Amino acid sequence: MAHLNETHAPSLRSWIDSANAHDTDFPIQNLPFAVFRRDGTDEPFRGGVAIGDQIVDLAALAAERPFTGDASVALQAAASDSLNGLMALGPTAWSALRLALSKALRMQSASRGLVEACLVPQAAAEFAVPARIGDYTDFYTSVHHATNIGRQFRPDQPLLPNYKWVPIGYHGRSSSIGVSGLSFPRPIGQMMRPGAPSPVVGPCERLDYELELGIFIGPGNATGRPVSMDEAESQVFGLCLLNDWSSRDVQGWEYQPLGPFLSKNFATTLSPWIVTFEALAPFRVPFVRPAGDPDPLPYLDSPANRAEGALDIRLEVDLQSRLMRERGLSPQCLTSTSYRHAYWTPAQLVTHHTMNGCNLRPGDLFGSGTLSGPTLQEAGALIELTVGGQQPLTLAGGESRTYLVDGDSVTLRGWCEAPGAVRIGLGACIGTVLPTTS
Amino acid sequence: MAHLNETHAPSLRSWIDSANAHDTDFPIQNLPFAVFRRDGTDEPFRGGVAIGDQIVDLAALAAERPFTGDASVALQAAASDSLNGLMALGPTAWSALRLALSKALRMQSASRGLVEACLVPQAAAEFAVPARIGDYTDFYTSVHHATNIGRQFRPDQPLLPNYKWVPIGYHGRSSSIGVSGLSFPRPIGQMMRPGAPSPVVGPCERLDYELELGIFIGPGNATGRPVSMDEAESQVFGLCLLNDWSSRDVQGWEYQPLGPFLSKNFATTLSPWIVTFEALAPFRVPFVRPAGDPDPLPYLDSPANRAEGALDIRLEVDLQSRLMRERGLSPQCLTSTSYRHAYWTPAQLVTHHTMNGCNLRPGDLFGSGTLSGPTLQEAGALIELTVGGQQPLTLAGGESRTYLVDGDSVTLRGWCEAPGAVRIGLGACIGTVLPTTS
Repeated sequence: MAHLNETHAPSLRSWIDSANAHDTDFPIQNLPFAVFRRDGTDEPFRGGVAIGDQIVDLAALAAERPFTGDASVALQAAASDSLNGLMALGPTAWSALRLALSKALRMQSASRGLVEACLVPQAAAEFAVPARIGDYTDFYTSVHHATNIGRQFRPDQPLLPNYKWVPIGYHGRSSSIGVSGLSFPRPIGQMMRPGAPSPVVGPCERLDYELELGIFIGPGNATGRPVSMDEAESQVFGLCLLNDWSSRDVQGWEYQPLGPFLSKNFATTLSPWIVTFEALAPFRVPFVRPAGDPDPLPYLDSPANRAEGALDIRLEVDLQSRLMRERGLSPQCLTSTSYRHAYWTPAQLVTHHTMNGCNLRPGDLFGSGTLSGPTLQEAGALIELTVGGQQPLTLAGGESRTYLVDGDSVTLRGWCEAPGAVRIGLGACIGTVLPTTS
Repeated sequence: MAHLNETHAPSLRSWIDSANAHDTDFPIQNLPFAVFRRDGTDEPFRGGVAIGDQIVDLAALAAERPFTGDASVALQAAASDSLNGLMALGPTAWSALRLALSKALRMQSASRGLVEACLVPQAAAEFAVPARIGDYTDFYTSVHHATNIGRQFRPDQPLLPNYKWVPIGYHGRSSSIGVSGLSFPRPIGQMMRPGAPSPVVGPCERLDYELELGIFIGPGNATGRPVSMDEAESQVFGLCLLNDWSSRDVQGWEYQPLGPFLSKNFATTLSPWIVTFEALAPFRVPFVRPAGDPDPLPYLDSPANRAEGALDIRLEVDLQSRLMRERGLSPQCLTSTSYRHAYWTPAQLVTHHTMNGCNLRPGDLFGSGTLSGPTLQEAGALIELTVGGQQPLTLAGGESRTYLVDGDSVTLRGWCEAPGAVRIGLGACIGTVLPTTS
């Protein structure tokens, strides 16, 4: 594949031992970005890059001015309290910084001493949302999710006629996006119980998670200037994990005709690390439509997208209840799937979103939508796994679950493996449900 | 009414003559805020207050430090290139600044000389979007609009069962919000023609406007802390006009099941001036539900909201085609209505939006939704006025219209009149459709 370069070489090893462990999420081939500070301090937040169990503090590194040219410009931008400036620079600068960091972290690097002085252990850090997110758009790219959900909301017509033609999406809420570790109270909502004469107001009874990926946008486009498929990937800075918490009972009552609103906007959780699109190059796979499905319309099609527009990112959801924590029981894996099953690629989302001239800005966030795979065991939300609450799951320790219970922690994980490539990970996205406050 | 004060007194007159004209939008009782600079310059944008045909340059005034206490703090905040800082301060500070400005602009003001040096003619100014809008939420508060539209999209069930219980809303796009004077190319979109086997892509053929009001949010609330009805109005900084341009053919094809997306996010236009909620106090009217409709649920109800939660803001839509401009024909009034017909008040929108703990931030924007009145002549969009394009309108000069044609300019206007009060206006919100670029 043309876009592999020396930073992807499986032979590369770092002078930081923990980066060479076979099961680390953050080998030298990854180099994802976050915004962090030392936990419990009032230091300014600043950019960092993960390497093994450490963070390279990019503000500290930038103060040393170790790089030149594009890499230096990108490093100065990444030293800020948000990554918007870095995202605005575009792929050439991103690539230059990645290469410079890769060289500095390799065995026998001449700048080892300089970088070593800039390390902060990940265990000693707290993280922030990595960009000021101007607009957040949530898509609906799993045909399996759309079908599973559709069957419950519209038994006569699970998959709507537009699904295979339009990358369905809607605008979400930026203000309530938080970073992994977030706890939030169970939301209050207005709900209509079956057969009731009028709605009730109270704590949501069908609280769910959604397993998604987040896609951070790079330079953006001017209003009125669509982004073609050929240009689309240059708009993608990188990916993280995203949990789109949802109150299903509120959603069922409120969503017609303008879509989800309060059922989604009380909390959205991101993993702290953004894995760059460049780091994901070894894990690209062909974009394939099921036999009999229509080809994408020409504006959403390109040879490159067909050849390798999709990504094989393995995804997992773990649940741990309060009782399981108290008893020392490990989180239980509820779902295992891959992003490769998505019906639309990141490039198609960028191109569709801008076809009408809508402008994207650096730091804008797309959600992939719930990434359910083809079988029910690969479903990315409880509403699917429990068939709308009709088939409870049994947890280790004997508890059963239809929807989330107060005290439940949900962890999303993502990683990539491919022959001839070093495994890289997206880290974890953790969130915990608290009791309603009021 | 308790919230009238000396700034509303009909007897007040300004030493600026144009502010005393009976038909000005901006008498001394109004004092709306905008962000502006001298047209054609690269001066920094800064806050301004309208008075007659002039603007008080708040950055210039702030440099003189003419006020004390809350009014001084608010003036310094309003001198910035966005009004977010002012909005964050809350009603006490807003009121103090209004009173100080009112005193400075009255006949016999001792600070006339100082303020006179800070005036810029409105005709010499260009405007910016007055706040950095973190999140934009569009509501659906006209039951008449919901019914008219619903009849076309769902003839069997025009008004959905949730409408009279839930203030329906959805998140919109912040990035493409512009200020009056905006021109934009007709958007490209994916559309499904009736009976066609597959969708087509091309310039939207059913381009429409929507007559709305914008509501700018003040201090905001912390995540997880709902805002009660009693607190809700202290979150409302002020109102402006808002045109929610819409491509109906794209909307019809894309909107199921997650709501409008590309049909709305290519352009939204605001009037430059934000009329404060305080200035609107004389024009408050009872919030009344039609006989037989359910009362609002308790969390959306309060005695104050019943007594005067609604606002009588007169609204008008004018259209002028390119041909009309060339022939010197005046814009033609298509619609005349009032905000008093809305099914939900601003306070109810704030309370509903935050009931689940969703946080609002200073500078967030709500759209009211299309404000159609009870009769078809009061409808706020062409899709209603022309019954889905089936009953074309005839324009002065003989042209006919179903939807907008390239070159059409749409002007929204708003103003308030009440016995014993001086008329105040919201100004104008103008936008023009250009041909598709590609």
